[in-house]
Amino acid sequence: MDTYPITIGNLTRRVPLHEPFPGVRLPLIDFLGDVGLAKALAEALVKHVPAETDVLVTAETSSIPLVHEMAALLGKPYVVVRKRRRPYMHDPLIQEVESLTLGANEVLWLDRRYVERLLNQKATLVIDVVASGGTMHALERLVHRAGAEVVARLAAFRQGTPKVEVVALEELPVL
Amino acid sequence: MDTYPITIGNLTRRVPLHEPFPGVRLPLIDFLGDVGLAKALAEALVKHVPAETDVLVTAETSSIPLVHEMAALLGKPYVVVRKRRRPYMHDPLIQEVESLTLGANEVLWLDRRYVERLLNQKATLVIDVVASGGTMHALERLVHRAGAEVVARLAAFRQGTPKVEVVALEELPVL
Repeated sequence: MDTYPITIGNLTRRVPLHEPFPGVRLPLIDFLGDVGLAKALAEALVKHVPAETDVLVTAETSSIPLVHEMAALLGKPYVVVRKRRRPYMHDPLIQEVESLTLGANEVLWLDRRYVERLLNQKATLVIDVVASGGTMHALERLVHRAGAEVVARLAAFRQGTPKVEVVALEELPVL
Repeated sequence: MDTYPITIGNLTRRVPLHEPFPGVRLPLIDFLGDVGLAKALAEALVKHVPAETDVLVTAETSSIPLVHEMAALLGKPYVVVRKRRRPYMHDPLIQEVESLTLGANEVLWLDRRYVERLLNQKATLVIDVVASGGTMHALERLVHRAGAEVVARLAAFRQGTPKVEVVALEELPVL
């Protein structure tokens, strides 16, 4: 299987290539299970978190270890927006995602407990890979609606040209 | 809102109560975003991981920070079984979950890359909260089918009487 090398700090990983359409190959970023890579990315990304940030916000699933490590380094809490309604959710805030890469529209769900925690907070949004920017855009809308202010939008990797401005560590090519 | 106190090591949290049916109240464990609690639970749980373990295995989503911290402490990798098919998955292994608590059957998905990583490995299964044991049971079936041996089943919290034997740190009451 062909692979693509990514280097973060002094750590290199060869990631597999995913072929969503014939002739289009994309490096497949999925570092769930790779503690070393999550820590290296977190160390690099926290340098871009504004000091005024009260809380980090992400969407499940693959970004969770990254944001968890960033929160640990910064000593700040984080909020994980869900992509499925959970049985215990009470009066959740919901937000539709328009996403080209997923083919179908997704919905973000945030339990009211977390909505209340975001009120009047300064939030930095973090996603592992930003492509169309649809998830980042929906996350920003949801966080605004919860009464928080977005002070930064960060991604570990950028693939293509997202429709929102995002600070990313690395560019991923289309091969 | 009524809360229930949980204590892990020298850390106490008051968690909200969830009322799935009138008159039945359950402590709601959801420590996504709480770095301190994930670390405290991981420190307590790694003592129950057999030394022969090659890999930790969990199912998304809420258990991820816990297993990530355990993997970091142990210097071992982990695998996250998904509950939704992802677009990049190639020839995934799938396994149905029979779960009373969720009301509907769920399906576990594991991309072939990770199936291959589990072959001939000794796996410790970890879940944040075990209730009916349905997810744990399905996880074990899936890991077996991938060619791995399950050497332990661990949970941070046990609620009720699961149909599989699980080592848990704490019992959660039905109030």
